[in-house]
Amino acid sequence: MEFSSKLVERAVSEIALLPGIGKRSALRLVLHLLRQPKDQAKHLSSAIAEVREHIKYCKSCYNISDVELCDICQNPLRDHNLVCVVEDIRDVMAIESTSQFKGVYHVLGGKISPMDGIGPHDLKIPELIERVKNHEISELIFALSASMEGDTTNFYIYNQLKKFPIKMTSIARGIGVNDEIEYADQITLGRSILHRIPLEQSLKM
Amino acid sequence: MEFSSKLVERAVSEIALLPGIGKRSALRLVLHLLRQPKDQAKHLSSAIAEVREHIKYCKSCYNISDVELCDICQNPLRDHNLVCVVEDIRDVMAIESTSQFKGVYHVLGGKISPMDGIGPHDLKIPELIERVKNHEISELIFALSASMEGDTTNFYIYNQLKKFPIKMTSIARGIGVNDEIEYADQITLGRSILHRIPLEQSLKM
Repeated sequence: MEFSSKLVERAVSEIALLPGIGKRSALRLVLHLLRQPKDQAKHLSSAIAEVREHIKYCKSCYNISDVELCDICQNPLRDHNLVCVVEDIRDVMAIESTSQFKGVYHVLGGKISPMDGIGPHDLKIPELIERVKNHEISELIFALSASMEGDTTNFYIYNQLKKFPIKMTSIARGIGVNDEIEYADQITLGRSILHRIPLEQSLKM
Repeated sequence: MEFSSKLVERAVSEIALLPGIGKRSALRLVLHLLRQPKDQAKHLSSAIAEVREHIKYCKSCYNISDVELCDICQNPLRDHNLVCVVEDIRDVMAIESTSQFKGVYHVLGGKISPMDGIGPHDLKIPELIERVKNHEISELIFALSASMEGDTTNFYIYNQLKKFPIKMTSIARGIGVNDEIEYADQITLGRSILHRIPLEQSLKM
C-alpha cells in the first residue's frame, strides 16, 4: 500500500499491529477518525496511553485492578479458601456475571504455550504455588479453556501442587443448558456421558 | 459488562466507538496491548493523536496529503485536464495501483446520503464546481460506488455541471476480467450486456 501521507501511513501501521486488524481495516478506522470531531481521537489516544501506563494488578489474585487489592479479594463475604484459576480478566467477568461463585480468583495471565514461547514463569504460576503454600486454601477450581494449552497448564500446575493437601477440581464440561444434543460436538457429548452425574443432583439445579 | 478497573473500562468504551468493533473485541485489544511492551501502546496512542491533529488535505484535489499540494497534483507529467471524481483516499490508492490513469483526482470525502445526514455541502462538491468553473478541465470521470448513494451523488453533480462544456463519463461496469460469467450477479451481467463495446476495442486490451 502506498500512502499519500506519512501520518496516515504511521497510524495505519500502528493500528494494524493489533490482532485481527489488517492494513485495510486499519485504514478504514483512520478515515473514520478523520471524519469525527478531533476530541474523539484525543480521547481514544489518551485512554490507550493511560491504560497501559497506569494499569495495576491485584497483589493477591493478579486480576486487573485500580487499587492494590481488588474488590473481590477485599470482600470479607467471599470464601477465601476457594480459589478459581482462570486465564484472564474476561474469564473473571464471565464467572462473576453468573453470581454462582462465592470464592476468589487467581488470574494466570495466559496459558502455557511452547509454540508462542510462553512458559510457566511467564504466567502467575509461581505466585499460585506460593499462594497455596502460604495461605489456607481448601480447593482450587481450574477453569481454563479445554484446549491443548489449557490442558498442559492444568497438568503442570497439578504436578506442582499434588503434594499439598488441597482439593483440585475442574469446571464441568458438557452440553450447554439450552443446547440440543443432536447438534453438540462429539468430544463434548462424549465427555458429558463419561462425566454423568446422579439424576437427583441434576434435578436440584 | 462490569470492569474491575476504570482505566480498562474507559479504554474499552473509546475503542468500541470505532466502526465494526464491539465491547468484547475492544476488551480483547486492550488485553493484547497490556501484554505488549509499553512502547507499543505509546506509539499507537501518539500515531492516533497526531494523524487527527496534523492531517492536511491537498488544496487542489482534497486528497489526504502532508503538504499543501499533493504529489499527484504537483506532477507536471499528469494530465491536469482529466479529473477522476472519487469518494476517498482508498479509491485514489486503488486506481493509482493500476497505473492506468494519468489524470488527477477530486476527492469528495463521501457520498450524498440523506439517511446519514450527508448533503452536497458536507462534501467537496462546491469545490468541484468551482474547480470546473475556474480551470481548464476537459473530462470528469466518475468513479463512485454503484450504490444508491453513489448514483445520487453522480446525478446531483451531473445536474450542477451539465451547463459547462466538459465531457462527463463513468468508469465501466461489467464482468471482472477473471470472473466466470455464470457466477456474476444479475445486475452486473445485465449492465455488461447493455454497455457492450465493439469487439476490436476489447481485443486491444
